[in-house]
Amino acid sequence: MKFNLQTSFTFSNEITLIMEDINQYLKNFNKEIIKKDKTVKIDNIKIQKNSLSFDIISEGSFRPHNVLLQMKNAISKEFGKKHHIGVRTIAILDYTIEFELEKKPLKKVTIPFADVKIKDKLATMKLKNVDDEFLQKNYIDRMINRVKEKVENQYYEGKGEFWESIWESPEKKPVWKKDPTEEMAKLGWLQQGPTKGKWFYRPQAAAILKTMEKIAIEEVLKPLGFKEIIESHIVSFDIWLKTGHLEGMPGEFYYIAEPATRDAEVWERFVDLVKITKEIPDEELKKNLSIPKAGICYAQCPVIYWSLKGKTISEKSLPVLIYDNTAISSRYESGGRHGIERVDEFHRIEPVYIGTREQLLKLREKMLERYKHVFNKIFDLEWRMAWVTPWYMQQSGKIGDKSTQDTGTIDFEAYMPYRGDRKKSEWLEFQNLSILGDKYINSFNIKAQKSKLWSGCSGIGLERWTTAFLAQKGLDPANWPKVFKKYLEKIPKGIDFL
Amino acid sequence: MKFNLQTSFTFSNEITLIMEDINQYLKNFNKEIIKKDKTVKIDNIKIQKNSLSFDIISEGSFRPHNVLLQMKNAISKEFGKKHHIGVRTIAILDYTIEFELEKKPLKKVTIPFADVKIKDKLATMKLKNVDDEFLQKNYIDRMINRVKEKVENQYYEGKGEFWESIWESPEKKPVWKKDPTEEMAKLGWLQQGPTKGKWFYRPQAAAILKTMEKIAIEEVLKPLGFKEIIESHIVSFDIWLKTGHLEGMPGEFYYIAEPATRDAEVWERFVDLVKITKEIPDEELKKNLSIPKAGICYAQCPVIYWSLKGKTISEKSLPVLIYDNTAISSRYESGGRHGIERVDEFHRIEPVYIGTREQLLKLREKMLERYKHVFNKIFDLEWRMAWVTPWYMQQSGKIGDKSTQDTGTIDFEAYMPYRGDRKKSEWLEFQNLSILGDKYINSFNIKAQKSKLWSGCSGIGLERWTTAFLAQKGLDPANWPKVFKKYLEKIPKGIDFL
Repeated sequence: MKFNLQTSFTFSNEITLIMEDINQYLKNFNKEIIKKDKTVKIDNIKIQKNSLSFDIISEGSFRPHNVLLQMKNAISKEFGKKHHIGVRTIAILDYTIEFELEKKPLKKVTIPFADVKIKDKLATMKLKNVDDEFLQKNYIDRMINRVKEKVENQYYEGKGEFWESIWESPEKKPVWKKDPTEEMAKLGWLQQGPTKGKWFYRPQAAAILKTMEKIAIEEVLKPLGFKEIIESHIVSFDIWLKTGHLEGMPGEFYYIAEPATRDAEVWERFVDLVKITKEIPDEELKKNLSIPKAGICYAQCPVIYWSLKGKTISEKSLPVLIYDNTAISSRYESGGRHGIERVDEFHRIEPVYIGTREQLLKLREKMLERYKHVFNKIFDLEWRMAWVTPWYMQQSGKIGDKSTQDTGTIDFEAYMPYRGDRKKSEWLEFQNLSILGDKYINSFNIKAQKSKLWSGCSGIGLERWTTAFLAQKGLDPANWPKVFKKYLEKIPKGIDFL
Repeated sequence: MKFNLQTSFTFSNEITLIMEDINQYLKNFNKEIIKKDKTVKIDNIKIQKNSLSFDIISEGSFRPHNVLLQMKNAISKEFGKKHHIGVRTIAILDYTIEFELEKKPLKKVTIPFADVKIKDKLATMKLKNVDDEFLQKNYIDRMINRVKEKVENQYYEGKGEFWESIWESPEKKPVWKKDPTEEMAKLGWLQQGPTKGKWFYRPQAAAILKTMEKIAIEEVLKPLGFKEIIESHIVSFDIWLKTGHLEGMPGEFYYIAEPATRDAEVWERFVDLVKITKEIPDEELKKNLSIPKAGICYAQCPVIYWSLKGKTISEKSLPVLIYDNTAISSRYESGGRHGIERVDEFHRIEPVYIGTREQLLKLREKMLERYKHVFNKIFDLEWRMAWVTPWYMQQSGKIGDKSTQDTGTIDFEAYMPYRGDRKKSEWLEFQNLSILGDKYINSFNIKAQKSKLWSGCSGIGLERWTTAFLAQKGLDPANWPKVFKKYLEKIPKGIDFL
């Protein structure tokens, strides 16, 4: 890496008379700096009237902009005392940073605040219109990282996800090959919701979804000692900044805009226009709303981590085993919506577990056992498990081959007969289970009395459980496994329409 | 009421030569109109070059702007055929409407699209910058109504709500006089949520809230035959236009802004800025969001009515008895937040009932019986019931004295010992029950095979049940009624922090 910062200081008075002094001072300053980083060089010093210009060059860990900010203070102090001269303004004439990439980029890379040119594996980043205030912010290294990451992502784009089967159930003969959502909609068990990708579950479909909830709680969570918590389904941006969601999938959130005020007088014109035109006056609405600072729950675990932020957990409370079954998840899906299995709004139970590595590895075995019990014994499903690599782990590169599979995510996939051949069609991810190491533990500064903590979570999607089950077992309880029928013997009667 | 519309038509050619023809035509047109409304008069006819100007005056039900639009078509047809002359433009020179108010306004009244002057009880509304396109929209009568309503509201503002006690329990000796939220927060049973007016219920407080849910379902809803549905918690504006919520409380919604796109390229700069600055770039966010078209659930019943929109319900399905226990309610509270009893986010079960008047009046008695059973026998509360008049009924003026109490709302209020003397302090509304007549039935065009339908709903606020109970019975299960303890014997162990 090579940094070259060209700068000029404008002093409150002419400095040509103290040229020697200044030159000497800079030389000494350079000598001191070299003790910290021997690659730093102050070069090309020019003095003219009340202006001092020079370059700071560095190839080490000490960045020229940090050198500059230190120097500004030192010079002001030194020459203020000695010559009653101060630094009025600092101009950044040029700041160019060269660094090596691991791979040649496949297409152009741009980032804010700088022009980036890349030749082979050498990137040259030239900052645009920056001042010393900008340099004070800690952006430069993040900009370098962002360029590197973008090139890295170019290679990763389009590559298939990591996927490795670890368990498969025997083949099961499906009862039918129809799409359960379509059939339920025809029967009036459910109807499309008032906005895109939402559903209204009439009593018949609601009973099935609620049965899935009951089975998850009674057969998986309670036997393992998980306790329910209730979290807010509204997530502030500062939480998503910590988890990385906000940089990961900003195009997938349902954002929340609060009213700028509740004051009826401010809203009077809006109400007038609604009452007179029977339409929504968009511009008037915009004026009365605040800029979003939060969104609707995307997954439940971030708020659970937030609730433990900065806490030190007593050893005897480990492992912490809690779940949320209240917050509704919303994800903006644009394309690819299908039935109740790929939707903008869904209902998930999310258990979160925090404990030592050993505790979590043991817990994972017990959870797998309970899930197997449900999917084999109660649902009698054809399904499989696979190691996969979700975005947050891929980014930080923590997951590797099978031998290091302490952390990582297991996906549970069910065969969906309506999609065609079991070997060729896409199976439905209807459940997952992750151990995430110390990622979120560190982001939220969660500590234990003594132990080093890990955490993990496991999303139980009720809509996914429902479609996986119905896609294989059909809508007629007569064809359902006996054990399942202990939970739901028959479909409740709905409302009859003419 | 008196309408005076001054208008002028510009023709495609000079019309002075056919002046007689035009005068005769207007006379005949007026004669025809008078058959429909004898107060309509076309007056002050002037012809100059290619311009025809005249006034339309009316004091009856036929509005001058409707006369004008009819006339435009008729004239174009008549003179196009006869003289090959057409109407090029219509100018509205002045449109003044006078109407009587029931009361003198207490302060100035303004509305969009017009200047309003009021002298005593006579309002003069002069339209501003309108053209014939504006007149085609059906705004004028709604504007008149809006002025009348605003004057009416001036008298209503500040007047106390209608409130009449209809039942009171005996006094009960409270176990303590503390604020349950404060005490639970001290014990770590709950903590303030990540955004304003939200809470995070740790296992101890969650257990109590979930117990309330169970009691409501097992002791009230199931015995009466209510069936669960699952609705979307995202409500589109067209639903709130139909229920009147959007004109009733636009300053209280949590609005939802969807991403304008999921396209990663569009979001790239946003992600760059988040990654580099570790802050949210508000302007970049704004650019990437759509204008809100929906909000988070305010109460659950509107989406239930929407789900039945335009349907004809079979007689044998009456009364329809359904409830939602999934959608989370959000209300922007700005001031007045307190504990878990006045919050921006809460959890409610909302049963909705649709049937004949007789069915609903009978159901109300049975529901009151079940609620009394819960609040007297299980909670052992000190509470009362009162007739109240919510905004939507007050607006339509449907509720009156006790003799006409088929429709209306009953509030359930609990004494809150921590607030002070039972006679002087404000009690907490912890439950309500409404019969709303055919208001929503009509808004959503819901029909039965034969019967005339009414509807109603009853909000069961779990946070409200929880605080009402805890405020009187305290946090120690030892002091709780035995029957309640059948549902929750002890508080689960929470997470211990150092």
